[in-house]
Amino acid sequence: MKGKIKIGIVGLGRLGRRHAENLANHVQDVDLVAAASPITSELEWAKAHYGIETYSNLASLLKHPGLDAVWLVTPTSLHAQQSIEVLEAGKHLFCEKPLSLDVPSCDEVIKVAESHKDLVTMIGFMRRFDAAYIKAKQALNNGELGKVFRIHCESLDPVDPNAFFVKFAPTSGGIFLDCCIHDIDLVRWMLNGDKAKKVAAYGTRIMYPDLEACNDIDTGAAVVEFECGALATFHVSRTSHIGYKATMDITGTSGSLSIGHDIDEIPLIKGINGTSCHKGQQDFFSRFNNAFLSEATEFVRMVKANDAGMHFLEDAREATRIAVAMRESFESGKPVELN
Amino acid sequence: MKGKIKIGIVGLGRLGRRHAENLANHVQDVDLVAAASPITSELEWAKAHYGIETYSNLASLLKHPGLDAVWLVTPTSLHAQQSIEVLEAGKHLFCEKPLSLDVPSCDEVIKVAESHKDLVTMIGFMRRFDAAYIKAKQALNNGELGKVFRIHCESLDPVDPNAFFVKFAPTSGGIFLDCCIHDIDLVRWMLNGDKAKKVAAYGTRIMYPDLEACNDIDTGAAVVEFECGALATFHVSRTSHIGYKATMDITGTSGSLSIGHDIDEIPLIKGINGTSCHKGQQDFFSRFNNAFLSEATEFVRMVKANDAGMHFLEDAREATRIAVAMRESFESGKPVELN
Amino acid sequence: MKGKIKIGIVGLGRLGRRHAENLANHVQDVDLVAAASPITSELEWAKAHYGIETYSNLASLLKHPGLDAVWLVTPTSLHAQQSIEVLEAGKHLFCEKPLSLDVPSCDEVIKVAESHKDLVTMIGFMRRFDAAYIKAKQALNNGELGKVFRIHCESLDPVDPNAFFVKFAPTSGGIFLDCCIHDIDLVRWMLNGDKAKKVAAYGTRIMYPDLEACNDIDTGAAVVEFECGALATFHVSRTSHIGYKATMDITGTSGSLSIGHDIDEIPLIKGINGTSCHKGQQDFFSRFNNAFLSEATEFVRMVKANDAGMHFLEDAREATRIAVAMRESFESGKPVELN
Amino acid sequence: MKGKIKIGIVGLGRLGRRHAENLANHVQDVDLVAAASPITSELEWAKAHYGIETYSNLASLLKHPGLDAVWLVTPTSLHAQQSIEVLEAGKHLFCEKPLSLDVPSCDEVIKVAESHKDLVTMIGFMRRFDAAYIKAKQALNNGELGKVFRIHCESLDPVDPNAFFVKFAPTSGGIFLDCCIHDIDLVRWMLNGDKAKKVAAYGTRIMYPDLEACNDIDTGAAVVEFECGALATFHVSRTSHIGYKATMDITGTSGSLSIGHDIDEIPLIKGINGTSCHKGQQDFFSRFNNAFLSEATEFVRMVKANDAGMHFLEDAREATRIAVAMRESFESGKPVELN
Repeated sequence: MKGKIKIGIVGLGRLGRRHAENLANHVQDVDLVAAASPITSELEWAKAHYGIETYSNLASLLKHPGLDAVWLVTPTSLHAQQSIEVLEAGKHLFCEKPLSLDVPSCDEVIKVAESHKDLVTMIGFMRRFDAAYIKAKQALNNGELGKVFRIHCESLDPVDPNAFFVKFAPTSGGIFLDCCIHDIDLVRWMLNGDKAKKVAAYGTRIMYPDLEACNDIDTGAAVVEFECGALATFHVSRTSHIGYKATMDITGTSGSLSIGHDIDEIPLIKGINGTSCHKGQQDFFSRFNNAFLSEATEFVRMVKANDAGMHFLEDAREATRIAVAMRESFESGKPVELN
Repeated sequence: MKGKIKIGIVGLGRLGRRHAENLANHVQDVDLVAAASPITSELEWAKAHYGIETYSNLASLLKHPGLDAVWLVTPTSLHAQQSIEVLEAGKHLFCEKPLSLDVPSCDEVIKVAESHKDLVTMIGFMRRFDAAYIKAKQALNNGELGKVFRIHCESLDPVDPNAFFVKFAPTSGGIFLDCCIHDIDLVRWMLNGDKAKKVAAYGTRIMYPDLEACNDIDTGAAVVEFECGALATFHVSRTSHIGYKATMDITGTSGSLSIGHDIDEIPLIKGINGTSCHKGQQDFFSRFNNAFLSEATEFVRMVKANDAGMHFLEDAREATRIAVAMRESFESGKPVELN
Repeated sequence: MKGKIKIGIVGLGRLGRRHAENLANHVQDVDLVAAASPITSELEWAKAHYGIETYSNLASLLKHPGLDAVWLVTPTSLHAQQSIEVLEAGKHLFCEKPLSLDVPSCDEVIKVAESHKDLVTMIGFMRRFDAAYIKAKQALNNGELGKVFRIHCESLDPVDPNAFFVKFAPTSGGIFLDCCIHDIDLVRWMLNGDKAKKVAAYGTRIMYPDLEACNDIDTGAAVVEFECGALATFHVSRTSHIGYKATMDITGTSGSLSIGHDIDEIPLIKGINGTSCHKGQQDFFSRFNNAFLSEATEFVRMVKANDAGMHFLEDAREATRIAVAMRESFESGKPVELN
Repeated sequence: MKGKIKIGIVGLGRLGRRHAENLANHVQDVDLVAAASPITSELEWAKAHYGIETYSNLASLLKHPGLDAVWLVTPTSLHAQQSIEVLEAGKHLFCEKPLSLDVPSCDEVIKVAESHKDLVTMIGFMRRFDAAYIKAKQALNNGELGKVFRIHCESLDPVDPNAFFVKFAPTSGGIFLDCCIHDIDLVRWMLNGDKAKKVAAYGTRIMYPDLEACNDIDTGAAVVEFECGALATFHVSRTSHIGYKATMDITGTSGSLSIGHDIDEIPLIKGINGTSCHKGQQDFFSRFNNAFLSEATEFVRMVKANDAGMHFLEDAREATRIAVAMRESFESGKPVELN
């Protein structure tokens, strides 16, 4: 494909705006031409910043002349249906994670994607584009750790005094589907797509009591046993006092790798009263900004190279399957056997 | 009590020898006068190093003239019965952790201890004497973290190419009773002795397949829900490639504390090929040597001050109850409700 | 000024190519329109990558239609004369550091710049645009450290098995002018432009004996006493085995700040044989890439906003004065008094 | 020699009391039998804590029946003369560093020591007994770094709000003789006793203006060029806001070692407001406590084994020579050539 690819973005919340900014300014060969949202202020923002066409819904945006691809950054509950619309309109599709809150919807999207083999489709597992996870995966592929049998993940969001995320909780699918999904996907990646056998999850809700309304929690722990014998553990919380943190510790029979520890916001240590203090990462944007860019860059590269295909759709389904099992386990108080 | 207190030690395996060395050389006001063991080479070691009297069993050692106290560093399966013998002989008692592999035995020891109120009895939860855990506990008592609701512990032993520990596995009670017991006790300490409601445990056995004979594992994960709403997670493994590691991360509503991270064996970093390398702790001796000394020093202080009483016996029972529940959960594949 | 600003770059060595890439792809409102170099392969690179017009020298490039600004990334020995040419041609000027190897040449450029008050001129002290140094400067301005009296800087380049830099040594002005210049400028910035009183420098040449030909060294240390009483120390070397390192430790009467320590290339730690290993920064590009971008972005912002003025020219003269004194001190074996 | 060796200690200031405590409680085969001091309160402390004989001066203490060895922890200005007294009385000698504030006095002590070849004499360069420096020295001996050409040392005492040290400044010989002496000795050790060619030193006095009375400074920097081509730099200050710090970075042609960085007081990190805080070492006692013990243990071992000889006396002379040259350079404002 020649020239810049024309992209329309749907959803301009906090994350949507970041995607828009990346596409408009930091990714080569992209022409961000349109935005859609039911929220007027979001459309005004798009006009003011990028002077692009705006639409009140996806259906209208899909008719934008010459549109090549759509970037979905909408609430999770809309992902599956909107993905199908995009694909059926013949547009390349980028959809934020998770693909859906239930496995059958994932199946439907995959079925549609399979019948549009000329399109690039990608689910936004951006951490797969982070340099540290990529290097770890390479080390595993090279056999540097031997056989992997233990993976521990932590994904911790900073304490939010304004409880901003609470209003999104009802449609997010809960903490395991919203936050653990990245780590679930990465663990499966590190384990070469191995199948989960058994899932158990636990949690508590102390700092954000309002989450009770949707039976969500602010702090969760989950365990997944894989068929290969590996044991994966997941910690997820909205309560970090040391800034954003996303870590993974991988242990194999001959070595280990630790990803994401001790990353300061900036390399500055303050000394006072015999104490050294350093600030952690602000949020996942600062930690994974380059990964978001690489993700978009790769998507664009594939579109331009006519390198069509599905990326992470089946992985997304498996991640959803496991995350749903975590939620079920948490709700029932019992482990869930998968197949 | 005047003068040095006369101590007899029982059991001179790796840990027993360390205790002997501490008592003989590094703790004030102690006279290490006797040792007992059924193993000839251990008794020869005691004679050669400290020129002390040796006995083939506890009963004989208890008759050593003027003996004030006994230090039990025997296999766990003997702790309870031997503790009772020591107390009934009217000697002060130090017993290594865990007190027993089952709760009823703990109860029996406690009953006997309660009827010997003139004696000092102490279970060897030496981490309670480590400066970092003490400081953390003080911070919690001062309310510096607010309400604690999440505690994560890791206790990792270095990979052992000789699989030395495997031969002790059959009598150790398994990884949860042998290794997790410290963290279980510390978590309860940090939570002011709160009760566990529910326990679940998982594990795998990859590096030491010989553990199968006693149904033990080399890598475990456990979750404990406490009545106060706190969620505690425990990782325990014999497979660390970065040296010995014992960490605890405590999160409260207004702050967090992390204990035991990034402790090098010695403060020396080697730079080569653009890489910085540093060696971790060798084992729990190097990490907790000062705690062992403080523990013994406090025991001796109490004996000398006639400050009789039970120390950590009821805590030991609760730790055993939880660790046993972990093992049961691991074996049954189901969470265990306590009470 | 409306529309994109048209920039021509001069010099496409390793650093020049990075500037070109940033200007072409990562800085908004820029049109990289032309490149000049006497080296054919460099011009071919520019054509192949950006399809821009090429010229064999600055004089021709200055005639490029509509050119707004020139980016000088040429050998240091050419900076002053070329800067004057650019300014006299009425173009905005960005010139890499150092401005010159001698103070009188700096004076000449400043005189010419002063007579072109409608132009933006900037010397490439990109570290002033790094988040950590900016934050440190803000903390100093807020009085958070009290009175600053000790600053220690290290700028260490990785060992270069190919001795790539050696061929540039003869025209670089030597290690103090080439490498220390950034730290000299930053120290003066942190000290609010204070005057140096006395300069002394020392050095050795062990790993790159070929530097003897131009009397340069691979490892230097310098001390500068400032009028305010502050003592600044500078370490500079081409011999780091732990990757690129640029650190600054600032001590004041009530606190201290440390910049740039322990920055890994990526947040990945490998554990093996009880040892943890992590790779340091590859080079100054990876450490300061964002600073290069911010620097260019600010330059472009000023041009577009008609916010003309001189940036860091007088600072560049002072930095050259101090760096020249370091070289003199090293050569004479005696401290040099300034003023 | 059979039995415990009888040691008398002279000087019971802050450091003297630590030595006394170590000798009395933590070193095997020692009988601390006597103490001498002109200060009544110090003698009362010795009596109260250890019930030992006290004397108002060294001469009297030397007559203590059966005395084997003397431990000098007196003001530096007395070291040389008292050392000679001890040796001439036929007692083994431990003397705190520095041996003297001038080289001729060192020579006199060495002459006397040489005529008492049956005695153990040792100067208190305790850092030579620290595990990290020992391991570094072994690595150098093994050729792991190739040829060493750059060593940077920092010895930083915490800010002292009570300016306790200021009253000792007049007799301490100044910051270079008092604080730098350890690093000077260690650098020479790492360089296999190489000779210093040239010494230069600089300094400032900001936080403790009262030091002006004795022309001392609170912050110094020194450079030493060695005959082998190595360049050593020394930072020394009384003004650390991050706790006590003693670091050494050694660079060779094929690798580097860094000693003493990032040692927390205890392994405890507090998280609050997105920031991680950890306390540094309190003072040199906490950093080097084990080194003090190893030093004393080695001294006692040698006495018991009749392993007589001089330890570090000639090194002490060389360290004094270099430290004196630093002070001279600081005072004259010019480098000092040594040969």
